[in-house]
Amino acid sequence: MSSDAFDIMTALGEQAKVAAKTMRMVDTKSKNRALQLAAAILRREMAEVLAANALDMKAADESGLDAALKDRLALDADRVESMAEGLEQVAALPDPVGSVRDLVYRPSGIQVGHMRVPLGVIGIIYESRPNVTADAAALCLKSGNAAILRGGSEAIHSNRAVAACLRRALVDAGLPQDAVQLVDSTDRALVGALLKSEAYVDVIIPRGGKSLIERVAAESRVPVIKHLDGICHVYIDADADREMAMNIAINAKTHRYGVCNAMETLLIHQDAADLAADLTKAMLKKGVEVRGCDRFRAVVGRLDVKVASDEDWATEYLAPVLSIRLVGSIDEAIDHIAQYGSGHTESIVTQDYDAGQRFLREVDSSSVMINASTRFADGFEYGLGAEIGISTDRLHVRGPVGLEGLTTEKWIVLGHGEIRS
Amino acid sequence: MSSDAFDIMTALGEQAKVAAKTMRMVDTKSKNRALQLAAAILRREMAEVLAANALDMKAADESGLDAALKDRLALDADRVESMAEGLEQVAALPDPVGSVRDLVYRPSGIQVGHMRVPLGVIGIIYESRPNVTADAAALCLKSGNAAILRGGSEAIHSNRAVAACLRRALVDAGLPQDAVQLVDSTDRALVGALLKSEAYVDVIIPRGGKSLIERVAAESRVPVIKHLDGICHVYIDADADREMAMNIAINAKTHRYGVCNAMETLLIHQDAADLAADLTKAMLKKGVEVRGCDRFRAVVGRLDVKVASDEDWATEYLAPVLSIRLVGSIDEAIDHIAQYGSGHTESIVTQDYDAGQRFLREVDSSSVMINASTRFADGFEYGLGAEIGISTDRLHVRGPVGLEGLTTEKWIVLGHGEIRS
Repeated sequence: MSSDAFDIMTALGEQAKVAAKTMRMVDTKSKNRALQLAAAILRREMAEVLAANALDMKAADESGLDAALKDRLALDADRVESMAEGLEQVAALPDPVGSVRDLVYRPSGIQVGHMRVPLGVIGIIYESRPNVTADAAALCLKSGNAAILRGGSEAIHSNRAVAACLRRALVDAGLPQDAVQLVDSTDRALVGALLKSEAYVDVIIPRGGKSLIERVAAESRVPVIKHLDGICHVYIDADADREMAMNIAINAKTHRYGVCNAMETLLIHQDAADLAADLTKAMLKKGVEVRGCDRFRAVVGRLDVKVASDEDWATEYLAPVLSIRLVGSIDEAIDHIAQYGSGHTESIVTQDYDAGQRFLREVDSSSVMINASTRFADGFEYGLGAEIGISTDRLHVRGPVGLEGLTTEKWIVLGHGEIRS
Repeated sequence: MSSDAFDIMTALGEQAKVAAKTMRMVDTKSKNRALQLAAAILRREMAEVLAANALDMKAADESGLDAALKDRLALDADRVESMAEGLEQVAALPDPVGSVRDLVYRPSGIQVGHMRVPLGVIGIIYESRPNVTADAAALCLKSGNAAILRGGSEAIHSNRAVAACLRRALVDAGLPQDAVQLVDSTDRALVGALLKSEAYVDVIIPRGGKSLIERVAAESRVPVIKHLDGICHVYIDADADREMAMNIAINAKTHRYGVCNAMETLLIHQDAADLAADLTKAMLKKGVEVRGCDRFRAVVGRLDVKVASDEDWATEYLAPVLSIRLVGSIDEAIDHIAQYGSGHTESIVTQDYDAGQRFLREVDSSSVMINASTRFADGFEYGLGAEIGISTDRLHVRGPVGLEGLTTEKWIVLGHGEIRS
């Protein structure tokens, strides 16, 4: 690592730590005021933000950035307005900080409970999507943390403009501007330095493609909240309502293709194979390529159903492709999920009480569902208000991560002079 | 790392992972039965356990192990009986696994909640205290996890005998014996291999001295739940009840010296300096060496109060030594704690409402107390039933770690055919 990168990150880290110390004690009203001001400033500085984005788009054209990435990078008036509305939505969410749960009297006479408090300094590493700058900063700010933001280098001008609005709002609200800091450089060594900032940073959240997240997880000395794959399964049980099963399978696969909670593999109990033909027809009609196990292909008997290989079961397509497997029992379905799943989201469709209970208990994923589309695995749908990502880790926070996932708890003890005897 | 160590740990890890898959679905009755059987077997095999311990004690004599370590290593009938009772106590605790909280209807019609589930495979690295073998295994077992235990090499025979009792009990209860595995070797390379077993192990909990924990934290690729120092503070506010302040300070310092929740530094508001003389006298009478800041020494005016250096404020004595500082305000006290504290446990003594509220909100430690002895920071006192340690980490679990700290949550969704629109 270059000593320059290390020095820059040390300065950012120290500033963040000082800001975090103030932020964790700031009252709800001031935090909300900062978010509302940020929304107003973003709208007021719209022209400046769009001009900065134009610089990024020009560079993207020149470097031949691919169309999908350019679409994510591009801002227009509507997208900036969406960012501003997102800030206002986070302002409207309840503040998790300071809430106390389970305060009880103990036999010794002391009262013991848990108080929710911020994590401290949060590092966000993301790709070239300027809206993440506003979204991530808003969640960190509302949860009383300081944020160090490292966005993709293609978005540097846009991120700089958006971060400037946020920092101005912090100052106008009487809060430390270093509660939101952008790593204002495209030097890749800074990512490495951030991942080694365990003295300043409490947690790193990478947002982006698998290769980015794998690199972060492998290199980081700071704890990471992450999700790698979303190989989500729907299992249609023998006792499934057939219409419900069709609706859920089609929604889980075709509602959106490029999202982590889309179904990638469909498991069907052999006694529900009667819906195989209709289901295949419906998927093909939606433009979904269907790949099946040998038994499924024999049942359906269509040449346009391709062969699913072992690799298919382990693939997150993020595309209009679906692999289907016929299973002999719920055990086989649960075993398949344990072997090939990524621990993200799985759903059973069944009217059988025991099958539903077993699936709920035995499938070990961040979200486990009965009779619902996997597409519901989402912070908004779960009532978190907003999410900074979905965690497939086991520790600290699992599934959609909202404000609560950006906090921790401390024990509080209210005594009356009690001593240990 | 030797490939031997790697192979041994891979085998243990694979076996643990298979056992964990069963353990996470085992009903409460079977887990309790295994713990009760383990207690019975431990009592029945008392002679064998004591004989194994005698081998360790003989080796300890020969190698000249120091007296304190030998005391921790030694077993007798009473200590084995205590281990058995500890197993029965864990059996009597409520099972956290499978409990569901906050199951609510969402506007879409789905019900969303959190279900508590085991972490998976837990590695425990500890010093030569055979009772930890039983205690740690019991907590892992009750919380539905598989444990890989690596005790200090001086206790290898004792640990082997105790682990054998636990494994026999698992088999007798119809559970996988590999839910409890001992690293049956004194090869130090195995610790390194365990710390790199991120493919099999979900979390590592080191129990022991600071150097052990520092090594584990530095080397581990598996997430670690740990606590380093316990530099606990009591702050006597201007508005403290003087008698209560005396009682709490004396209890926090002198109830036990070698424990992490003992007070190491006492901060006194200058307006409460009237109790300085009595307090110093009481501490000295208990055999506590008192070191003070210049102002405190001037107030007390005793030659037997030594000078507290900057190093004193940053030291966990774990001994009958106390450093005392006179502060001008609660702000100064909170700043001192932020600068020198270890984030373990701090207590304010005050009758002032605002001072109590400020201390509770602004001090960022795993336990923050009003008018109670720091000695209460303990899993039993907090109602956890038993504890596997105290965490001063911020993520996942903070403060005393009981059964709940050895679990995580998954989201559950109960639907009725809902799809995303």
